[in-house]
Order: sequence, then structure tokens, then C-alpha cells
Amino acid sequence: MVRILAVEDGGFKSKFFWSKRKGKTFLVCVLADDFKIEKIFLSYVTVDGLDATMCLSKIIRKIRDKLDVIMLASIAYAGFNLVDPEKILNQFKVPILIVNPKKPDDKAVEFALKKHFKDWMERLSIVRKAGKPSPLKVNEKIVYVYCFGLKVEEAEKLVKHLTVFGVRPEPLRVANLIAHGLGMVN
Amino acid sequence: MVRILAVEDGGFKSKFFWSKRKGKTFLVCVLADDFKIEKIFLSYVTVDGLDATMCLSKIIRKIRDKLDVIMLASIAYAGFNLVDPEKILNQFKVPILIVNPKKPDDKAVEFALKKHFKDWMERLSIVRKAGKPSPLKVNEKIVYVYCFGLKVEEAEKLVKHLTVFGVRPEPLRVANLIAHGLGMVN
Repeated sequence: MVRILAVEDGGFKSKFFWSKRKGKTFLVCVLADDFKIEKIFLSYVTVDGLDATMCLSKIIRKIRDKLDVIMLASIAYAGFNLVDPEKILNQFKVPILIVNPKKPDDKAVEFALKKHFKDWMERLSIVRKAGKPSPLKVNEKIVYVYCFGLKVEEAEKLVKHLTVFGVRPEPLRVANLIAHGLGMVN
Repeated sequence: MVRILAVEDGGFKSKFFWSKRKGKTFLVCVLADDFKIEKIFLSYVTVDGLDATMCLSKIIRKIRDKLDVIMLASIAYAGFNLVDPEKILNQFKVPILIVNPKKPDDKAVEFALKKHFKDWMERLSIVRKAGKPSPLKVNEKIVYVYCFGLKVEEAEKLVKHLTVFGVRPEPLRVANLIAHGLGMVN
């Protein structure tokens, strides 16, 4: 049995209008034992802020039992609010696994950071820590993983074990559905 | 495979201070095929209002494929905001099953309605439509079910099939976890 914390973010308006990108969105965390959802944590994170690492730390601190792995959908949450996987790994000694069904475009990220952020160097250094992703074949499709504190072989075993529908491991898929539901609330 | 819509509500402050009960809380709906979560819908409902039936109707209308059953945790959402199961059944021709791990206390409900609501007769008539619950033994515990448009035997089969952990069928358990997470957001 693997104890996972899967992290997704909610959407926000004006995604493609840089001058209007502001406010908060949700950070959705699903705590699961394999396929059993144990608990849902929600927090607010600032669109294009730099508080995602702190928000995630706060949530992890609430979890009493030892986590086996933290699963991220990306390094960037709420726009370019970057989660620093190294910081989380050092602080909690829990491996971090980023599972992204899309191939990250590092050049586009660098371009956007330089264009829109005064503190682009700080942000880019977090992106660069992640290095190059490893492609994995899951359910006949490719996902891109970044591993911190675990080997690619371990990541592959984990992702294959937990992916049932589509290309997202179940806890991430459910976190994604909740995040999407939150975006649609009316 | 059973297609279920499971409905829970979020908490609200001042639950035990009647004069301060106001505002909105969440209605959380989990659409599931057996154990596979397909989609999450969220809506706001008024604490002690009477808009829960309408809010639920709006969500059901968004679901394209035929539902097999709508699973409620109670008739009363967001305080005494009552979902009228007969109305939903007549409108959508989908059976409604209420699964409550606690034995409902009809006398206490009637007392509270008469004491705090001018429109208590309207509310009480919805409560009375539900009639008496049938006790079912699930995982060595008793749950109380109310059936609209399906037989108790069918309800028993369904509840036993879908209950894996504790006394709540999985979609209701997950809806409950999301509602709880929404209540804890900070």
C-alpha cells in the first residue's frame, strides 16, 4: 500500500491576459492509500505568486502518518507559482514525483518568465532544478515524469500501479476532477 | 455498472446558534460509474433556505448520460434546506436513495421546524413524504435508507455493492470528504 498526496490547482480567469492575471485559486490535495481516498485538503494560492511551496508545506504538516510520495501535476501551479520540489524533499524527506501528460516546453516557460516577471531568475532556478523529464509509456500513451528522491524505475512502477483510467494516476485524476469542479461552481 | 450521482453538503458556521445561521454553503455532487469518479459538480445552497431541490435539479440537467440512481445523505442539506425527493423523481425519472448512517429523529426535526421556520408546514410536508426509513445491515453496522422509485431490496443490493470502507457507499463517502475539505479551506 502506498500513501500518496496528490496535488492539483484550480483554474483562474484571464489566463491568457497577462495584465489581468491576479487573485487566488485553489490548491487541491488528495491524500490516498493506493486507490482509497482518505482525505481532501484545500488551500488558496496566489495566481503567479510564489506561495505554492509554503501552502503545500502547510498541508503536508497536517498529515500525521508518513507519506510515501507526493505527486505533483507540474512544477507550476496557479500560473507560474512554482512548487520547489527540492525544498519539499529536504523539509519532509518524502520523495516527489511530477507526472505530466504533456511534454513541458522549457523554452516557452523561460520566455514567459523573462517577459512577465521581475524575479524571473528565482523562478527559472526552480524550473531548472527539475532538469529534463523522463518519458514513460503508460496505457499506450507517454507521460513525462520528474523524480526527486526516487529513481525513475520506482516512479514507473508507481505510476503504472496507480494509473487505471487515462494517463493520470488515480489520486491525481481525482484531484484534477475536484479542481475542475471548483472552477465551475455557480 | 451503476451510474450514480451522490450528494453531500458543506458545513457552515454558527450551526448551533439559530439567530446567526445564514449565508451559503456548498452542495457537492460526485458523478460516478460504480467506483470510478467521473466528475465533480459544486454549487452554492442557502443555509436554511429552500433552494436545495432547485440547485440539485440544475446539476442533474448538466448530466447527459442517463443516471441510474441519485444518492442523498439526508433530506436536509445546509441546515433545513430540504431536497424534495418526489419532485426530483418526477422531474427526472431517476430513483432516489437516501443513505443515512444515523437514525433520523423525526420528532426533533418537527420540533426545530415549528420553532424556527414560519414556513414549517411546507418543510414538514417534504420530511413526511420520506416516511419511515428501512434499516439495513452493512459492514456489521446499521444504515437507514429511504427509497423513492426503487425497492428496498434493490437499495440493499446497491448499498452493499458500493460500500467498501465504513458505512457510506463510495461516491457518498468521497462527496463527504470533498465537502469536509471545502469546510477546512484556509
